[in-house]
Amino acid sequence: MKILLTNDDGVQGLGMLKLAEYLKDKYKVTVVAPEKERSAISHAITLHKPLRLKKVKEEDGLKIYAANGTPSDCVKLGIEVVLEEKPDIIISGINEGLNLGTDILYSGTVSAAIEAAIYAIPAIAVSLAETADIEDRRIYKFLENLIEKVLEKGLPKNTLLNVNIPDFKKGIKGVKATILGKRIYIETFQKNYDPRGKEYYWMAGKISEIEKDERTDIVSVKEGYISITPIHFDLTEYNMINILNSWDIKIE
Amino acid sequence: MKILLTNDDGVQGLGMLKLAEYLKDKYKVTVVAPEKERSAISHAITLHKPLRLKKVKEEDGLKIYAANGTPSDCVKLGIEVVLEEKPDIIISGINEGLNLGTDILYSGTVSAAIEAAIYAIPAIAVSLAETADIEDRRIYKFLENLIEKVLEKGLPKNTLLNVNIPDFKKGIKGVKATILGKRIYIETFQKNYDPRGKEYYWMAGKISEIEKDERTDIVSVKEGYISITPIHFDLTEYNMINILNSWDIKIE
Amino acid sequence: MKILLTNDDGVQGLGMLKLAEYLKDKYKVTVVAPEKERSAISHAITLHKPLRLKKVKEEDGLKIYAANGTPSDCVKLGIEVVLEEKPDIIISGINEGLNLGTDILYSGTVSAAIEAAIYAIPAIAVSLAETADIEDRRIYKFLENLIEKVLEKGLPKNTLLNVNIPDFKKGIKGVKATILGKRIYIETFQKNYDPRGKEYYWMAGKISEIEKDERTDIVSVKEGYISITPIHFDLTEYNMINILNSWDIKIE
Amino acid sequence: MKILLTNDDGVQGLGMLKLAEYLKDKYKVTVVAPEKERSAISHAITLHKPLRLKKVKEEDGLKIYAANGTPSDCVKLGIEVVLEEKPDIIISGINEGLNLGTDILYSGTVSAAIEAAIYAIPAIAVSLAETADIEDRRIYKFLENLIEKVLEKGLPKNTLLNVNIPDFKKGIKGVKATILGKRIYIETFQKNYDPRGKEYYWMAGKISEIEKDERTDIVSVKEGYISITPIHFDLTEYNMINILNSWDIKIE
Repeated sequence: MKILLTNDDGVQGLGMLKLAEYLKDKYKVTVVAPEKERSAISHAITLHKPLRLKKVKEEDGLKIYAANGTPSDCVKLGIEVVLEEKPDIIISGINEGLNLGTDILYSGTVSAAIEAAIYAIPAIAVSLAETADIEDRRIYKFLENLIEKVLEKGLPKNTLLNVNIPDFKKGIKGVKATILGKRIYIETFQKNYDPRGKEYYWMAGKISEIEKDERTDIVSVKEGYISITPIHFDLTEYNMINILNSWDIKIE
Repeated sequence: MKILLTNDDGVQGLGMLKLAEYLKDKYKVTVVAPEKERSAISHAITLHKPLRLKKVKEEDGLKIYAANGTPSDCVKLGIEVVLEEKPDIIISGINEGLNLGTDILYSGTVSAAIEAAIYAIPAIAVSLAETADIEDRRIYKFLENLIEKVLEKGLPKNTLLNVNIPDFKKGIKGVKATILGKRIYIETFQKNYDPRGKEYYWMAGKISEIEKDERTDIVSVKEGYISITPIHFDLTEYNMINILNSWDIKIE
Repeated sequence: MKILLTNDDGVQGLGMLKLAEYLKDKYKVTVVAPEKERSAISHAITLHKPLRLKKVKEEDGLKIYAANGTPSDCVKLGIEVVLEEKPDIIISGINEGLNLGTDILYSGTVSAAIEAAIYAIPAIAVSLAETADIEDRRIYKFLENLIEKVLEKGLPKNTLLNVNIPDFKKGIKGVKATILGKRIYIETFQKNYDPRGKEYYWMAGKISEIEKDERTDIVSVKEGYISITPIHFDLTEYNMINILNSWDIKIE
Repeated sequence: MKILLTNDDGVQGLGMLKLAEYLKDKYKVTVVAPEKERSAISHAITLHKPLRLKKVKEEDGLKIYAANGTPSDCVKLGIEVVLEEKPDIIISGINEGLNLGTDILYSGTVSAAIEAAIYAIPAIAVSLAETADIEDRRIYKFLENLIEKVLEKGLPKNTLLNVNIPDFKKGIKGVKATILGKRIYIETFQKNYDPRGKEYYWMAGKISEIEKDERTDIVSVKEGYISITPIHFDLTEYNMINILNSWDIKIE
């Protein structure tokens, strides 16, 4: 079985490298990851300049490449340039920091997995609570089990999984299938002055409304569950088609 | 009525500036746009460095600001920093080039409108065929009508509109509510060598399968319709929740 | 006579555009400037990705191009791509902010003029005190006189001029040929934390030692003179050749 | 003795890492290098956004930091933020690729050493022929000897050394103190079209005139010598001061 790994923390990302090391005994693992950190890059791709690809490591069962692109670029390069055959599964992560609720729209980690799903390859985005112990072997054992399950059962067409793993030090309640919660921010920008007296704005963001729906990824992770949210990427709002057709908008 | 305008072509973008000029007679128009072209940037936001905002023009009914951020950053800056009150509507575009089907996942134009919808502000993303005549007054008259309609009727919660306008030179069939079509690419990268002999890959992409579904934006625009696709941004795949719960994935 | 203009403030830079407008009555003026601000970029050039060139304005006696490169890239593009014949003189500026003493090593404005001199084209870097009135017609009249003089007399091989213009509101003492002064900074970095609590360092820089040598550009500008420093770019320290040869450094 | 190391190839640069490993037995070595490749960046510094510093390795006698800045930024960060005391010497390199003649004006490697000299710290820029064997122990032994000599003898004020090491496979003639040669390029840009049909220009550059002066770094390296060029950074052209004063340039 062939696994393609990527992330948005960059090719030095500890979560991804530890996962690669863990998986390489069982699978043929290829990593194609951004040469530097590209978080909050969402689904950006690089159209207007060329991409570079550099092999940074090769050993038994594991090849690592760095590219000067986004996570989505890396998935494309991995499938179209690096690998001779389509991988059996693509993992994006382990991201150090959760990717929950509305925020996944901004996430490079989740977008890379969506890109894989566009290619019709089973894909899992994996994020870990920042305070968690990345050395905890249970994280890797769980992911191995999940990968096995996905390879065995398959995923529905145009569907991928977004996995968020809480800090195990606070106890593990179990694994839970969740829906995306809502994240509303307030006071998004800190205004300040640089050393030359020039004004700037730095995105801050405090969460304003606490999500309370127990079915959501946000609440589930907070309560100690590993959250698995099934994700699609069809942005059509079918319910509004008829409404729109009734509007009768004039051109001239 | 207050309109906030942005785009991903940058603050010099002709489509946006012409729309701003057209709308400023009727509305109070504020433009906050990237200082340089940021296409294919998707929903990327700038967390790790500060943003700069610069007023580049101020005249009756029109203020224009440039920011060193992404289209989504510009929407956030517009709402949270530039405007004293929430705008009544946000327009992203006019993008010179269509944003259709699966490709909207990569689009900065559409992502800026999604960002607006996250703020619960009615939003329209507008894209124009590259060969079209950006001076054609019918484009602006249609958009004025659409804006009026949205302000009058409102949009359902968490819904925005993605508008694609064909080349009118080939005739206009009318306005059509559409669903997102599918875009599959092949041979995505051109491999080549730079003047110093170093290998590079440049994303190319030929469309491999022709979308034929008449309900889609892709086919509708090709046939000469102005396409309006209602867009949501809830990526939860509800149908798979039960399947996932039945999987019984072990942690250890 | 053909003049090529560039700067490091970007193609919207007011100082450069006003100079271009002033000079276009008398000369054929072509502007090739960075699409965005590139100050403190020094002599950087773009080897590893391609450059784009975009005509942004064309009118009688004046063409303006924007490039996605550095000031030095712009000089190269101007000479090798845009202009059919070598320009008679290249002006870099008017930079809004002085470029004095040791600091010219960091300056994109001065480096662009050095690049011109490498091409054996007479070149002048022009910088203006930040508090000065960029509308003051005397600035432009003086530069016209200086350009005339350089075109008439020529410049020695591998030599260019670095001009710094003080705030005329404080009186003008005259024009003075100067040497580069010394700028020593202390406490160069402000340490701080971003909104996510991550440490960063922002270059600040207070000048520690006041230059007192009256022959220097620093002192001359402070006293109200327009400073003209003749600049070369041969970095060989000839005096040390013999010392080095006496060292007898072993290889193995 | 404390050595600060940097480069413009990035913190993964093999030449720099091998030198660090070699020197750490004898000296206390600290590396502060750009997180990614920054060649041809010249003396650029980062004024308008904050810098990040990340410790990537710590072991006996060797600490390695990555920064999101230029080589000159790294020297400043090394001296002002990372090290408690001024280093005894700063080495920039080993750059994989020579830095010869006029081209050193563009070089990040040489500019980092100039930055060190501005701080009055002895500095050596080191570059190696691209075809050379970076494992050749003689390179490191020679550099150790040179460092010892510089620490013993000191360098004149405002002077640094630019060292270029040829491919030893072609034989080593010895060590030679040199002057900077001249590099003139022709046909600098390759014009081409990207996959979307948009024109671009890629800096190419063929050397047009062959430097023949035996005293130069260019000829010396070609002949098999290790070249050491003493470098200063006073760009004043003193010979032109009197000429300029005689010009009598009018202001109005």
